[in-house]
Amino acid sequence: MNRRDFLGSSAILGFGLANVSSWSNAKAQTTSEMDKREIAKLRISSQMGVAPGDSEEKKLANMKKFGCEAVEYHGGVVGQGAKYKKMADDAGLEVSVICWGSHGGDLCKGDPKKIDNLKVDLKKALETAGELKARGVIYVPAFAHETKMTNQEIRQLCLDFLPEMGEFAKQCNTHVILEPLCRMEAFFLRQVADGASICRDCGGVDSGVSVMGDFYHMYTEETSDMGAFISAGDYLQHVHLAGGTQQPSRTLPGQNPRTFVDGFRGLKYIGYNGFCSFECGCQGDRIVEFPKSIQFLYDQWEQA
Amino acid sequence: MNRRDFLGSSAILGFGLANVSSWSNAKAQTTSEMDKREIAKLRISSQMGVAPGDSEEKKLANMKKFGCEAVEYHGGVVGQGAKYKKMADDAGLEVSVICWGSHGGDLCKGDPKKIDNLKVDLKKALETAGELKARGVIYVPAFAHETKMTNQEIRQLCLDFLPEMGEFAKQCNTHVILEPLCRMEAFFLRQVADGASICRDCGGVDSGVSVMGDFYHMYTEETSDMGAFISAGDYLQHVHLAGGTQQPSRTLPGQNPRTFVDGFRGLKYIGYNGFCSFECGCQGDRIVEFPKSIQFLYDQWEQA
Repeated sequence: MNRRDFLGSSAILGFGLANVSSWSNAKAQTTSEMDKREIAKLRISSQMGVAPGDSEEKKLANMKKFGCEAVEYHGGVVGQGAKYKKMADDAGLEVSVICWGSHGGDLCKGDPKKIDNLKVDLKKALETAGELKARGVIYVPAFAHETKMTNQEIRQLCLDFLPEMGEFAKQCNTHVILEPLCRMEAFFLRQVADGASICRDCGGVDSGVSVMGDFYHMYTEETSDMGAFISAGDYLQHVHLAGGTQQPSRTLPGQNPRTFVDGFRGLKYIGYNGFCSFECGCQGDRIVEFPKSIQFLYDQWEQA
Repeated sequence: MNRRDFLGSSAILGFGLANVSSWSNAKAQTTSEMDKREIAKLRISSQMGVAPGDSEEKKLANMKKFGCEAVEYHGGVVGQGAKYKKMADDAGLEVSVICWGSHGGDLCKGDPKKIDNLKVDLKKALETAGELKARGVIYVPAFAHETKMTNQEIRQLCLDFLPEMGEFAKQCNTHVILEPLCRMEAFFLRQVADGASICRDCGGVDSGVSVMGDFYHMYTEETSDMGAFISAGDYLQHVHLAGGTQQPSRTLPGQNPRTFVDGFRGLKYIGYNGFCSFECGCQGDRIVEFPKSIQFLYDQWEQA
């Protein structure tokens, strides 16, 4: 069957030629893949606890000094957007995200009042993220010990709950960011592709609901970091940097054998230029090891 | 930090240089990616019901005539390996797999006797697959209506049950092949990456436990066919070909708007040269539509 025959049969079958046209454009995507590699960029961020320094100001100054472009704040900054925005501004840093959490797993307790309280507090966090010009608020539906609900039940709760939160996030120019975790921490959402499928079912890439990947959890749960990030695609709004479960576990990248090349290749494939942020421990002197890890990551990016 | 410094620090940290060396080889993988694209091949198979013809012999003859390299048999062939091997041989076809099923979901009933019966029957199917020189036996732990167990419970049952089945499959030179299905059919295993993670946890690519992807189910469950197949990697032993849920649903590829280019790009990336097998309905005259669909698939492969 040649292309003309196929166009004929497709018209008879009554589906839009727009689709056929997108198929014929597929080869051109090879060029767009190169374009995506061009726009992809390793932009490093760090949680406060990982950076060297004995005060918040010194930690921020060291992040900037050693090549970070952003800081990842904890949930304690909610309601203090102006103060923490200024602190980041003064250090010459952007704010990547607020690492918020599960609100005690309140979505998955079977108590509508708990969900109402969760909504109020998550909206406050999203408002602060908006003030900070952050990419989003990291949200976990429930840690393993916080719920007895099945995966089916929790997924449905997510589809009922997240679209409203995503809509509110959009009004704040930010995102709700789902974090897949290893099975021990949250069996419900273990893989990046599964998080992406929740985003899609919540309304797609414009829903304000997005996903992240954490290299520590991915080491346990993913068979391919690259496959996982390609499945995340445009739903990906954040990445956590940490070594895997090899000893020393969950430490600075480069301090254990976990490779980042395959994952970075995936980030390049999808044209990711959001932030990759340290959430990990450190073996040894932070003032030595922190910049060493950043150099290691740039080497891995180069190889990807 | 230069490479020498890093080698020094890694030696101090006490992890193997073999790992460091594999990192530095990462760039060379770009070449091996091209090698994998070279060895990847679209090799089409078909279930008997999909092919045109009013007898098994005529269906097999038409498969061969229109470019199929293999037939996918149903579970009814178990115990009749010699007969069905000869039938395929006579038509000049290989046998891709036996499409077997869930054995009534007996793994997930909470009854050890049912599991014992399942073991006996799955081993018989694997023996027949060996006689047929097939890539494997497609196995579903349980369809949605067959079990009330949680995902956690079913996953543990898989890890308890599958390694022995995989070991037996290896003795027969074949595989147990897990089939991820859409949520309506089997919520437990919906995504290809999740199936691959079960294979890994069962002992890895040499365990005899493998995974497949079905383009119909993937349309509902995957955000990226390419990401899914890259996550499957060397665990992938089979692919089912069918259109998505667009109308007409689950029909011959090319008869509805579902694209195969992104998925085929993933198959090329991992160097897949196993079989892709029709499991779908047909709109119109099979003798016209079956070869048209094969040509459509070759066009999609070319674009990938």
